[in-house]
Amino acid sequence: MSAESPDNLVHVYTEKGITTVTLNQPEKRNSLSLSMLKVLSSVFSDLETNPDCRVVVVAAAGHVFCAGHDLKELKGQFNQHEAQLAVFQECAKVMQQIVNLPKPVIARVSGVATAAGCQLVASCDLAVAAEGSRFATPGVNIGLFCSTPMVALSRNVSRKHAMEMLLTGDMVDARRAEQIGLINRVVDSEVLDETVYGMAANIAGKSAFTVKTGKEAFYRQLEMPLEQAYEYTAEVMASNMDANDAQEGISAFLEKRHPEWRDE
Amino acid sequence: MSAESPDNLVHVYTEKGITTVTLNQPEKRNSLSLSMLKVLSSVFSDLETNPDCRVVVVAAAGHVFCAGHDLKELKGQFNQHEAQLAVFQECAKVMQQIVNLPKPVIARVSGVATAAGCQLVASCDLAVAAEGSRFATPGVNIGLFCSTPMVALSRNVSRKHAMEMLLTGDMVDARRAEQIGLINRVVDSEVLDETVYGMAANIAGKSAFTVKTGKEAFYRQLEMPLEQAYEYTAEVMASNMDANDAQEGISAFLEKRHPEWRDE
Amino acid sequence: MSAESPDNLVHVYTEKGITTVTLNQPEKRNSLSLSMLKVLSSVFSDLETNPDCRVVVVAAAGHVFCAGHDLKELKGQFNQHEAQLAVFQECAKVMQQIVNLPKPVIARVSGVATAAGCQLVASCDLAVAAEGSRFATPGVNIGLFCSTPMVALSRNVSRKHAMEMLLTGDMVDARRAEQIGLINRVVDSEVLDETVYGMAANIAGKSAFTVKTGKEAFYRQLEMPLEQAYEYTAEVMASNMDANDAQEGISAFLEKRHPEWRDE
Repeated sequence: MSAESPDNLVHVYTEKGITTVTLNQPEKRNSLSLSMLKVLSSVFSDLETNPDCRVVVVAAAGHVFCAGHDLKELKGQFNQHEAQLAVFQECAKVMQQIVNLPKPVIARVSGVATAAGCQLVASCDLAVAAEGSRFATPGVNIGLFCSTPMVALSRNVSRKHAMEMLLTGDMVDARRAEQIGLINRVVDSEVLDETVYGMAANIAGKSAFTVKTGKEAFYRQLEMPLEQAYEYTAEVMASNMDANDAQEGISAFLEKRHPEWRDE
Repeated sequence: MSAESPDNLVHVYTEKGITTVTLNQPEKRNSLSLSMLKVLSSVFSDLETNPDCRVVVVAAAGHVFCAGHDLKELKGQFNQHEAQLAVFQECAKVMQQIVNLPKPVIARVSGVATAAGCQLVASCDLAVAAEGSRFATPGVNIGLFCSTPMVALSRNVSRKHAMEMLLTGDMVDARRAEQIGLINRVVDSEVLDETVYGMAANIAGKSAFTVKTGKEAFYRQLEMPLEQAYEYTAEVMASNMDANDAQEGISAFLEKRHPEWRDE
Repeated sequence: MSAESPDNLVHVYTEKGITTVTLNQPEKRNSLSLSMLKVLSSVFSDLETNPDCRVVVVAAAGHVFCAGHDLKELKGQFNQHEAQLAVFQECAKVMQQIVNLPKPVIARVSGVATAAGCQLVASCDLAVAAEGSRFATPGVNIGLFCSTPMVALSRNVSRKHAMEMLLTGDMVDARRAEQIGLINRVVDSEVLDETVYGMAANIAGKSAFTVKTGKEAFYRQLEMPLEQAYEYTAEVMASNMDANDAQEGISAFLEKRHPEWRDE
């Protein structure tokens, strides 16, 4: 199942439960123009309820993963505060759609991911990058601090590492990005797809109901103090136990057979 | 001083200020059944006020550190929401007893720690594992997401690492666990006890009053914004200075002699 | 431009936008006595509005970076709760001045940084240390838990690492400090200045207005839940776009020329 967005900005392809969302404007370094953001928002909206989609892979065409906002667009609306705000709010909305999507999202990075492009990687649940990929939040170099990207960045890496990226704007290579926790793994580019789609297929084979339950609870409990987080998640687990898939999964495990998910 | 719990589920042994709490049901992979949890809760309750206990080591008999909840028990109460909830709440209670215990708790891991067993390691103040030990939150594989374990896990390791463990359910070896911050150190199994009990003896030799003051403040300030955290801890330090042990410790340091703690 | 504080406790020197603040009491291990703290507070207060200062480097004279509070001073006021509190509050104030300073602060560490000295490093936005430098929060050894230092420490490194430092009081070498995120980088002592001042010059060359905007937003958004952090930073970015420096920076980038900052 394949679909193209208006103007072909984003390509969406679903197979065996894995939906690949490909930024498809390599000639513009896959920049997050307002139109690109609106298409992405619409895509994630659709995927939320699409039963054929169990896991999402965010990829990009060309040698640049994503270069962040479209600076020509921003320049075209200098001194139009509300228009600028609309772009940053739409971007923040897309990033939160990824976090709130009831399906895991894996960034498949090959090339450079900068500014809001780095934010996109940080916002995904998981990220795998090919050797040679690089990451930066270079807004400080052009007078526009990466203030929205840092929301995602600083929730992935420690303060000193985030501050170094934000204040220097310098590139961080994939190995360093792995060390500081921005991505899960760096692999040879030849095995990038094998690694990403292996991980995606692994997760797509699990109960979608269970994965949805867990992902939602993960981000919610992170923002709670410990006691409240435990009260909340104890209830989440007890409700999870009421579901078919937990009862089937536990029974299958004890009976040493493969479970049959009904995704409920 | 040694004690055994009803049914010998947990073995408790105190020597030289160090209490070793050993999960003692290796034939059931030291699973956290409701009865095991109740015994642990009672043990930690006792240790809270036991003056002979200055540091706690959590260990396990057999080749599995702890395999998490008892799935047969959970299966036996399918569709009994309140009964299931009681198990998860008891588990959350024990984990918080460890965090709130006025004495440091060190996990001594040799073998596999999964699900609530991994949560147990994450909930301890410190953790040392033998080479070959492995960690996982594999609930997703049996339809029951590790939602309570992730409360502790996600407060130890960064988001992408936590999400990878939770969504894939895959095992993480001890070296990787050390890299991502789930444990403090991985050592050869031959020196596991030497390392753990060396660390425990080191801490047991310090003022129990000071350690108690600091541990309590540590977890409380973590949940505060910066300004409030400083207001709170400045007061904690000033009160700490009013105590005998601080005055003795500082005097001894300046006089180049060993301090004599009165634990007050 | 050079200045010395009363009693020469702190040396302040500004050149090419970089202000070096040097703790200058090596014979007292640069300890943070109340008078040292008051001088530092006054220095940071001045730097806040000093237009010649774009980046701050915190350095120290002698072989010890900073040994924390002045224990003789604390001993001299045993049982004077309010006097002790005043010291810890002044210290907490200085640390928060660094965080709230609208200019980046880089710790240049050569030697030992312990207790409030370690807190000073953790409180800076960035930190570079020479090989051989060491870090510890050893208050537990003298009966006075490092409760205010841990506020900064625990916001830099993960829980298990922070707890190990706090409960054992043991020294952590520079390599380990880099691994756990307490410092950005460890370098040979011969290239320490080159590294620190290279980093400082890099940042001093950027728009001070942009850096100020970003640093302030960084620490504020860290304490917000995700949705609120995005609402806040989207507005920060839109306001940043209204400023001359962003418009100049973006125009210069698109025109492939160097930007001319007006710091507004």
